Amino acid sequence: MPVPTARLLVTCPDAPGIVASVSGFLRNHGANITAFDQHASAPEGGTFFLRAEFTTPHLDVDAEALERAFARVVAEPFAMDWRIDYAARRARVGIMVSRYDHALLELLWLWRRGELDCEIPLVVSNHDDLRGEVERFGVAYHHVPVTKETKPEAEARALALFHEADVDLVVLARYMQILSPEFVSRYPSRIVNIHHSFLPAFVGAGPYRQAFTRGVKVIGATAHYVTDDLDEGPIIEQGVARVTHRQSVEDLKRLGQTLERDVLARAVRWHLEGRVLVHGNKTVVFG
Amino acid sequence: MPVPTARLLVTCPDAPGIVASVSGFLRNHGANITAFDQHASAPEGGTFFLRAEFTTPHLDVDAEALERAFARVVAEPFAMDWRIDYAARRARVGIMVSRYDHALLELLWLWRRGELDCEIPLVVSNHDDLRGEVERFGVAYHHVPVTKETKPEAEARALALFHEADVDLVVLARYMQILSPEFVSRYPSRIVNIHHSFLPAFVGAGPYRQAFTRGVKVIGATAHYVTDDLDEGPIIEQGVARVTHRQSVEDLKRLGQTLERDVLARAVRWHLEGRVLVHGNKTVVFG
Amino acid sequence: MPVPTARLLVTCPDAPGIVASVSGFLRNHGANITAFDQHASAPEGGTFFLRAEFTTPHLDVDAEALERAFARVVAEPFAMDWRIDYAARRARVGIMVSRYDHALLELLWLWRRGELDCEIPLVVSNHDDLRGEVERFGVAYHHVPVTKETKPEAEARALALFHEADVDLVVLARYMQILSPEFVSRYPSRIVNIHHSFLPAFVGAGPYRQAFTRGVKVIGATAHYVTDDLDEGPIIEQGVARVTHRQSVEDLKRLGQTLERDVLARAVRWHLEGRVLVHGNKTVVFG
Amino acid sequence: MPVPTARLLVTCPDAPGIVASVSGFLRNHGANITAFDQHASAPEGGTFFLRAEFTTPHLDVDAEALERAFARVVAEPFAMDWRIDYAARRARVGIMVSRYDHALLELLWLWRRGELDCEIPLVVSNHDDLRGEVERFGVAYHHVPVTKETKPEAEARALALFHEADVDLVVLARYMQILSPEFVSRYPSRIVNIHHSFLPAFVGAGPYRQAFTRGVKVIGATAHYVTDDLDEGPIIEQGVARVTHRQSVEDLKRLGQTLERDVLARAVRWHLEGRVLVHGNKTVVFG
Repeated sequence: MPVPTARLLVTCPDAPGIVASVSGFLRNHGANITAFDQHASAPEGGTFFLRAEFTTPHLDVDAEALERAFARVVAEPFAMDWRIDYAARRARVGIMVSRYDHALLELLWLWRRGELDCEIPLVVSNHDDLRGEVERFGVAYHHVPVTKETKPEAEARALALFHEADVDLVVLARYMQILSPEFVSRYPSRIVNIHHSFLPAFVGAGPYRQAFTRGVKVIGATAHYVTDDLDEGPIIEQGVARVTHRQSVEDLKRLGQTLERDVLARAVRWHLEGRVLVHGNKTVVFG
Repeated sequence: MPVPTARLLVTCPDAPGIVASVSGFLRNHGANITAFDQHASAPEGGTFFLRAEFTTPHLDVDAEALERAFARVVAEPFAMDWRIDYAARRARVGIMVSRYDHALLELLWLWRRGELDCEIPLVVSNHDDLRGEVERFGVAYHHVPVTKETKPEAEARALALFHEADVDLVVLARYMQILSPEFVSRYPSRIVNIHHSFLPAFVGAGPYRQAFTRGVKVIGATAHYVTDDLDEGPIIEQGVARVTHRQSVEDLKRLGQTLERDVLARAVRWHLEGRVLVHGNKTVVFG
Repeated sequence: MPVPTARLLVTCPDAPGIVASVSGFLRNHGANITAFDQHASAPEGGTFFLRAEFTTPHLDVDAEALERAFARVVAEPFAMDWRIDYAARRARVGIMVSRYDHALLELLWLWRRGELDCEIPLVVSNHDDLRGEVERFGVAYHHVPVTKETKPEAEARALALFHEADVDLVVLARYMQILSPEFVSRYPSRIVNIHHSFLPAFVGAGPYRQAFTRGVKVIGATAHYVTDDLDEGPIIEQGVARVTHRQSVEDLKRLGQTLERDVLARAVRWHLEGRVLVHGNKTVVFG
Repeated sequence: MPVPTARLLVTCPDAPGIVASVSGFLRNHGANITAFDQHASAPEGGTFFLRAEFTTPHLDVDAEALERAFARVVAEPFAMDWRIDYAARRARVGIMVSRYDHALLELLWLWRRGELDCEIPLVVSNHDDLRGEVERFGVAYHHVPVTKETKPEAEARALALFHEADVDLVVLARYMQILSPEFVSRYPSRIVNIHHSFLPAFVGAGPYRQAFTRGVKVIGATAHYVTDDLDEGPIIEQGVARVTHRQSVEDLKRLGQTLERDVLARAVRWHLEGRVLVHGNKTVVFG
């Protein structure tokens, strides 16, 4: 049955013939394309993005040989940045969290239901509060306290844990510490954060208070990849909700938490499904 | 410059190799694909839908020869239902309206701004009220009154006008008459209607009153292709708005009119851009 | 400090002077109004609805005397249907559920966070699946199986449990059994159900499949009070989400579950805050 | 018939007894309250806002005497900032616009339909482009060009026109000039502007380009009162729309224009209905 078992992601300079080359290559090797999305960032001279799901049971070569051939025949001529993911190898996700439970529990709950196609081997937190909640899901909980002085060691400890767990993606589910550039550089475009505002409005601390003070009529939440510039990384997804003069700061927080968990869950799901390609400081999200 | 100048639309039984065949064919004839969307209605044994925009300045053959070759080489082997539209030939739209002006004016206003890629040679109405508004846009206005007795003649008159104006698409911008099966059969999947409710809720007459009576908290509008079954045709687009106990029936109508014009305008734009493919009683809308 | 400690709800025939009478009465007895909402269902001859929050620490009489005086001085002259709720007496909620956990867990999670102002003494289910999840929150779980033959006894058992637990509100958090008129009559306007469609579209079974088959572009969920007419009770709240041709029935279910839990949680919160007044088959919801 | 014919708006320090005093006063003079909204900005020590619609046919005194009595008996004891508007005196609106027609036409179109309860005696523009469109509605069009050098004279000319037309409200329907503090001070909380972004994101020029560059997934529009701080005045209403990587800057502009006209129209309607009370740099909007 043609359930897709692999997924090709491509970014390259736009040029004529890419779709034909990629699809012809896959067909010629016995792969059946089951989903195909492409995007060019400009009518001319832009960047080209491609995502194809395909089946592999009837390949005429093994995966390794397929990738070697693809590199030579298709990727090099078009100067492609590319990779193939296989369904047989599920992504491994490490979660970082502080004290708020809403975003974390949403991810764990969706994961248990089979709605996030990944492994979640561990949660790392600078507090011990959520241990019980996490362990209940059969997920390891590591308490790694962070102080101004111990931050480098704490980050090294977290990185070691993630490395050991062979983590592909780090999700900050309301982790209230700023990661160092060194940490971030270890997982480029592979750390997803949830910011509790409609970026770029209300960067930094206390966004719900900022929103209350400004008197906005709509609040938001933003999931983005983490870069060295705080709250400036490529946006993956945003969600919004209407508010009125009746809502207090506490009400905004409560409403916002529902947004946060939903927006983060969508962003993580899309990342795991290979739907998000980074383009400079922006993203292409294939729906 | 690679501005797309043609567009291929395909519907066919799903099978391996369609993407490669179509894209290979276009590349081999000098066409450059600038947008490419596909959808399969089921993992296996479903229907396959494809939309490709491409450039034609460097074709190695003329359009007629290209189409003949496509039919033989690609379309026949895959049993495709297909067509190619060319930017050089703008679609021609006839609008039918009764007395409400909101949906009509929206279309005319967008058209004048260049935001609807079509010609609008004429408006046909069973009332004479909106003549001034329409003629001001340089569009012919035909008053074709309809009574129970004269309906067949009136429809014949409208069909003659549309035929004479070489119309590709008929838009019912709050036309308060039910078209006969004979009329509908002349423009299959080429009559777009705006229904003033969130179908399938509140079919038939007085949907805002029905919504008020039922006490819904959200109202909607639905753009759909017209078929012989009233309010049952393939849905193209829907929009919704929140309401409360404070809104009267009149308030719902007023709110709803904003929805109606926006939803209809989106549906018409998407149809004109070849984004809407009909699949039984449903649509595929390539975003 | 003027934290409201009581809440007055009034429904009566509309008439001049109600606002002045109610507010004057409260002031004269030392109550300070902290929130005040009113609605008249028609410009003239309609029904009048009022909700007032007020403080009671400086009352010149005790609560019982206040109510006696209100009945005589205000309620009788205006033929009011009314009640006063006191913050000191938290509402008691019984939940009924079958196998889906999403709506149930949302309620329990919000309740644990202190975001639902109530007691939840028990959950009754026709399956035993969710016992562990529920008991973890310190809530009693009663497995009351239902078959066609045992339904009367099962309902009697559930009613006995609710009676024993002194329940004010019954929430059907995806309870897949239809309650008998006898059951419903025991909790008039006090049973909240979540229906997994945008009512009145797709009443009855399998609404997500119905929505998929009809090809809608927006799906919804509806929280309503249960009456004898299935899916026809007064609507409290509705939520919607956009979908496309890409979503399968399973995708709609998944998306819909997020809607369901959010819509149900809002409806339950509003009921507990005394914001929902029933008016025939509709509701007034004071925001 | 109890159609409300007057409207009372109050802002004052919060205190016990306001609702009773206001409603008692109105009843005692023969006024029937048909709508009543209140809001306190804080549980204690905040600011109190009140809006009441009432009928005047059966007043026991004339309007002037009523206002004198209200000032003495109610307003002074509570240190109220207040006013009474009468339906018999329709508000007069002056519109300023540059070259974009979408927001202007929406207002004129709604006004012609009777959906904006006001007079629109004139439009002032720094360009002559939209004269025909405006005059067609029977509204005077004044072309007042603005250059860096002539700005003071131009503003004086516009102010003279507004004064002469006895204007209560100035609406900037995409007027691309920054008003001087002198101009603004003449219409405090009575100049409504539409900003083409989701404030406070993307203040200043070119917000759609800014939004495109940042890669947001949601764009917005904001209607606010104009103060001396550009784009910082009290927000009345905001609207949002989802976008994807597929949209160009031009697409965002087009989508945004629909938002702008809708958001501005709502803000103007609410202002005209006396639903918007300014509170520092925020607004209370009674729904």
